[in-house]
Amino acid sequence: MTAPTRRVLLQLDCDPQPSAFDAIVAVDAGVDVLLPYGGVSPQTVLPLVHGAMFTRGGAALSQTAIFVGGSNVEMAEAVCAEVTQAFFGPVRVSVMLDPAGANTTASAAVLAAARHLPLFDQEQAARCRALVLGGTGPVGQRVARLLGRLGVAVDVASRKLQRAEEVCAGVMEKVPHARLAPVANASTAFHTALESSDLVVSCGAAGVVLLDAAGRKRAGKARVLIDLNAVPPAGIEGIGSGDKAKPEGPAVVYGALGVGGTKMKIHRAGIEKLFGAKSVVLDAEELLALGESLTAPPT
Amino acid sequence: MTAPTRRVLLQLDCDPQPSAFDAIVAVDAGVDVLLPYGGVSPQTVLPLVHGAMFTRGGAALSQTAIFVGGSNVEMAEAVCAEVTQAFFGPVRVSVMLDPAGANTTASAAVLAAARHLPLFDQEQAARCRALVLGGTGPVGQRVARLLGRLGVAVDVASRKLQRAEEVCAGVMEKVPHARLAPVANASTAFHTALESSDLVVSCGAAGVVLLDAAGRKRAGKARVLIDLNAVPPAGIEGIGSGDKAKPEGPAVVYGALGVGGTKMKIHRAGIEKLFGAKSVVLDAEELLALGESLTAPPT
Amino acid sequence: MTAPTRRVLLQLDCDPQPSAFDAIVAVDAGVDVLLPYGGVSPQTVLPLVHGAMFTRGGAALSQTAIFVGGSNVEMAEAVCAEVTQAFFGPVRVSVMLDPAGANTTASAAVLAAARHLPLFDQEQAARCRALVLGGTGPVGQRVARLLGRLGVAVDVASRKLQRAEEVCAGVMEKVPHARLAPVANASTAFHTALESSDLVVSCGAAGVVLLDAAGRKRAGKARVLIDLNAVPPAGIEGIGSGDKAKPEGPAVVYGALGVGGTKMKIHRAGIEKLFGAKSVVLDAEELLALGESLTAPPT
Repeated sequence: MTAPTRRVLLQLDCDPQPSAFDAIVAVDAGVDVLLPYGGVSPQTVLPLVHGAMFTRGGAALSQTAIFVGGSNVEMAEAVCAEVTQAFFGPVRVSVMLDPAGANTTASAAVLAAARHLPLFDQEQAARCRALVLGGTGPVGQRVARLLGRLGVAVDVASRKLQRAEEVCAGVMEKVPHARLAPVANASTAFHTALESSDLVVSCGAAGVVLLDAAGRKRAGKARVLIDLNAVPPAGIEGIGSGDKAKPEGPAVVYGALGVGGTKMKIHRAGIEKLFGAKSVVLDAEELLALGESLTAPPT
Repeated sequence: MTAPTRRVLLQLDCDPQPSAFDAIVAVDAGVDVLLPYGGVSPQTVLPLVHGAMFTRGGAALSQTAIFVGGSNVEMAEAVCAEVTQAFFGPVRVSVMLDPAGANTTASAAVLAAARHLPLFDQEQAARCRALVLGGTGPVGQRVARLLGRLGVAVDVASRKLQRAEEVCAGVMEKVPHARLAPVANASTAFHTALESSDLVVSCGAAGVVLLDAAGRKRAGKARVLIDLNAVPPAGIEGIGSGDKAKPEGPAVVYGALGVGGTKMKIHRAGIEKLFGAKSVVLDAEELLALGESLTAPPT
Repeated sequence: MTAPTRRVLLQLDCDPQPSAFDAIVAVDAGVDVLLPYGGVSPQTVLPLVHGAMFTRGGAALSQTAIFVGGSNVEMAEAVCAEVTQAFFGPVRVSVMLDPAGANTTASAAVLAAARHLPLFDQEQAARCRALVLGGTGPVGQRVARLLGRLGVAVDVASRKLQRAEEVCAGVMEKVPHARLAPVANASTAFHTALESSDLVVSCGAAGVVLLDAAGRKRAGKARVLIDLNAVPPAGIEGIGSGDKAKPEGPAVVYGALGVGGTKMKIHRAGIEKLFGAKSVVLDAEELLALGESLTAPPT
């Protein structure tokens, strides 16, 4: 009498217009029916969550899922918290959080670095040091959190030391064993970090140069440099947005598009995973693990 | 050259966010393409209706339909009136009205009662008496209207007598033969109604106790008690939301979830019926009749 | 691992509610996934366009397209300009512009006229003269532009001469060889135009009579009269909205519905064409050419 259960995804977006990017990725990941909602806030999300929870029973419920996005990362996190708090017992659906693509982008960047550095070996990772430029933005915070959780010593750089301190404190509240240190751009501590880092990831705003050619020369120990800025000029001078494991002296470099393929794979795989038998919540860590399971060893 | 005609449902919702609940039920009832519109009002609905009326011809037009919902029941009714007034001749589509689920919930409650009381026998129904607690809310008004139309004598209870009087007058304008009487909560008339009712239906706001244990003892003649409140505390003390035809002394009791399965069946069947060869308008009465045709005899 | 590429159409509408008409036509033209966005403006459209551009690569990108609509034609044109300017290299998708149905309606009207007048023969078209009543509205402007491009001498009539002058100047900026002349309603020039036109097209607002019976008598040379107003009274007195190539003396007449079938065919064919291998931008001229390729010779 009724049609076979179709995969329904509620796209809860904090921006007035729900993201077309997230919508099309969801469609390509096999969602049958996309229900996009814009202007979602923690205050207004509950009836939408209830609609997901109370319409299907049993196994059919696993064919309903929720994606939380939007350019305001803090608000999206608050929406996501409201969503998961509404669940009880078996009355729950899977949720993926990827505001502004921050979680999938950060995961892809860490995976790119891990092709060249032993980040997934706990003991060896503890001997690695990373510098995150623009470390207080949405993507930078997540790169720092993911690296910190793996055991890497992370310097979180920002124009404002206080903002970097807040981000480090915030991450270490979630990940107590993380070793994060705040550094102000161009400070002595910054230059020390630059000279001793195995990995430099630039996560700044579009069109802002965070490391010029002179700075790059000081990063002599770095084996991997990643610039996640897609709009010229590059955040790290000399990296092209299409660079992908491009050798430059003793290091390899990645640009935004060079990481983009992996980001898209993680995004799609995340959406697919939402419709599994067991409900999941996919935040940065889960998406990194998912990405790790997807990516082939370096070629 | 063109694709086969798909079932298109316009979801016209008076709330800013169109209901995810109504959307998913529509999907599960076989709608191919759902077009959800939020913030719909009587003033803005006409172009949407014209879009439904003027895009398909002949038999294909029967594969377009309209659902009107939202938490503001009065506004939804006004939208529905605008929708049906826009039609002319054969240029019309089917419409279902179910704001806040009031029509499907009320229908399900009446059907539950009818398993134990002869409500669908005109002569016997005329000898039944029912008390509707919280009778002035969206669901309560529809329960009163449906029972009144069946010939049952209905006492419509409310905290405010004037509001109950208005509701009774409103229902009797639509259903002149209905026998409805307004009663103020805790009045002498209320207690008389309580003692002489065969059926008590509680339709109050979430978390408000409308009949406590002492009150229930006075309802000694009642054979069926139904509490449509899903959020504790129960509207009728002692009824669990999952109770379904649960015997308690000489009576059987139903909670919100005990009625919910039938409500969902009616909702889905209503959506399916919209795409029949003949255009229909499904308001409370039509949905009750549809539910009657669906439900098996009590087991 | 991923589903086969489905046809995704972004419906970018400048009105608060995206048009249900455009949505259903898109569905019937084979769009698999419609993503409707309301309240789109030139200022807010870019992220939506980027979502279309950056989610699919290679051949799959041709299965994403954009439709721009809404009742505010100027704003829709500005949105369309923003959309096409965002594209670069092969990173582009097809776009169709049809605000308020103006492009498809104007194309259908010109095609109707061309069944009886040699409008597609450059030499003969140059000897034709047309009067466009209500020539400054969305549809009227496009009728004037399409006829002007074909070489027809066009008189653009309006209540306000200045507005007609602006429209003529605007069209001739786009189509330098167009021969357009502004005329004020009821002026001497208007009557001269009326008496010497082979074609009269009425494109005024709903319910406004632009040519009464006495006026029609003066249009003695006209072989085709088309009234695009669907709401009584007719814009040209005596034309029924269902008239389709109906002979009246030496002329044939068309009403809005008589032209509507062709309009719908063009609209659907336009949407289908968006998903071809080569990206296209479909404005009035392209839609007229598409319509010409679709329509059979008069029967």
